[in-house]
Amino acid sequence: MFKKVCIIGCGLIGSSIARAIKKNKLAGKIVSSNRSKVTNKKIIKLNIVDEASSDTKKIVKGSDLIIIASPLSSYKNVILKIKNSLKSGAILTDVGSVKKNIISLIEKNIPNNVSWISSHPIAGTEESGPESGFSELFKNRWCILTPTKRSKAKDIKSLKKFWKKLGSVVDVMDAKKHDYILSITSHMPHLIAYNIVNTALKIKKKKDRNIIKYSAGGLRDFTRIAASNPIMWRDVFIQNSDNTSKMIDKFIENLKDLKKAIKNKNQKKLEKIFTKTKKIRKEIIEAGQDINKPDFGRK
Amino acid sequence: MFKKVCIIGCGLIGSSIARAIKKNKLAGKIVSSNRSKVTNKKIIKLNIVDEASSDTKKIVKGSDLIIIASPLSSYKNVILKIKNSLKSGAILTDVGSVKKNIISLIEKNIPNNVSWISSHPIAGTEESGPESGFSELFKNRWCILTPTKRSKAKDIKSLKKFWKKLGSVVDVMDAKKHDYILSITSHMPHLIAYNIVNTALKIKKKKDRNIIKYSAGGLRDFTRIAASNPIMWRDVFIQNSDNTSKMIDKFIENLKDLKKAIKNKNQKKLEKIFTKTKKIRKEIIEAGQDINKPDFGRK
Repeated sequence: MFKKVCIIGCGLIGSSIARAIKKNKLAGKIVSSNRSKVTNKKIIKLNIVDEASSDTKKIVKGSDLIIIASPLSSYKNVILKIKNSLKSGAILTDVGSVKKNIISLIEKNIPNNVSWISSHPIAGTEESGPESGFSELFKNRWCILTPTKRSKAKDIKSLKKFWKKLGSVVDVMDAKKHDYILSITSHMPHLIAYNIVNTALKIKKKKDRNIIKYSAGGLRDFTRIAASNPIMWRDVFIQNSDNTSKMIDKFIENLKDLKKAIKNKNQKKLEKIFTKTKKIRKEIIEAGQDINKPDFGRK
Repeated sequence: MFKKVCIIGCGLIGSSIARAIKKNKLAGKIVSSNRSKVTNKKIIKLNIVDEASSDTKKIVKGSDLIIIASPLSSYKNVILKIKNSLKSGAILTDVGSVKKNIISLIEKNIPNNVSWISSHPIAGTEESGPESGFSELFKNRWCILTPTKRSKAKDIKSLKKFWKKLGSVVDVMDAKKHDYILSITSHMPHLIAYNIVNTALKIKKKKDRNIIKYSAGGLRDFTRIAASNPIMWRDVFIQNSDNTSKMIDKFIENLKDLKKAIKNKNQKKLEKIFTKTKKIRKEIIEAGQDINKPDFGRK
């Protein structure tokens, strides 16, 4: 599909894309730029990419597809480094979890002859780094494209095709809607997981192993998400600050409502809410968005 | 180990105990009492127990071990039904998730010649009903015994042995401590899961499929726990109301703190918290309390 693809930031997502490109033979050459020399050496050794360098400006040259897969807070530096090295007609995309701010930032900085189409593959695990990637990560997962003022129609078509070849199901929506919906389905769940684990840790006395011992009662589920990449998620919340704040307020309002029902021994209300939430699980499994095994198939 | 075991309430937990007893040949006879005639018929048909009836008073007679495995709100009715049918020297236990109140309730109602030792196997899935049980449910899971004023030492020893034969690792602690620790490791995580799914559902417009479509971004993890038995969890929160309320307050306080850090773009603080929460995951896996596979082994 492409002669040369450049992945900026070869972590869990970047390395999974590279692996899927190789596996599906979607590029003549894959290169990657990472600040860390250790990472650059590692991804060559693991045969994830053909060439790797910390000289982003140089290695990006001649690429038909450039994928920014580094944390959101690095985008400004990245775009300033690459803006004068982008090939005419190239497609520039990213894999960031928040869109509105970064779309404007990049729109302002790229030359007219480059198509800038933002992507968000809704896929990942709690692990980080190039060793943790795998080519099937995007299989049956949604990828949302958020076109910008600087996206050419033919390139949107081409990028859609690319994600589909990686196994994704592709949706297109505007950045504002994306940031709102994802704050409900992804950002808020992550914040809540971080917060409950943090709350448990604050309560836990030194050397008190009880939190770990009895975590199978529920807490362990949250520790998976709360083990996600700290830098990535720090950036997500800051970039989607307005939506996240609104969701926090709604969440607290509903939690206070539940607290009141518990204090008042309002059996009927609690049962009604818990019955409603039970139904959604079935719908998610039917939509192929989670495995159909009790306890995530742990048994 | 026992001549006759009676399980009152043959749902996920009760039927798993029955299956494990049969598999490990721990009783000469297993009987069960359930209010629903359909359930009684089903558990006979599935060969989970030897005899089943809705006449609790009658079927409990002659049992050496009686296990209450029905919702906490049913305990009062159950104990009033069985108190005059308990065999001298019998062991009475339960599997409830909250201890303090129910221990006093039962202490007051049983004859002197019966040993009352409360149990809490920390095991389960989001499924309910006798079909969803399995004999390996308790394997490598903790079971906490909370002895009461009415527990005989030799019977505590005997009950410990019983849970160990079911695969559990047994701990003993007092009811107050139990209810406090479990409010952190189990009750609060469940409440939070119910609340985030409820918040998402409130936001979701009718026929808006986005919440389901993009749930793999994080929300789906919470829908598993929020699919747990509504009656059971309604009772848990009401029975552990004081501890749960205190945990809600701490949780909200910490969440507001996170909101402030997000609004102030306090990168350092967020990164510090998210790095700390990441570590606990490793400890839980090392303690054998969760599987050592990214994404719960979904890939």
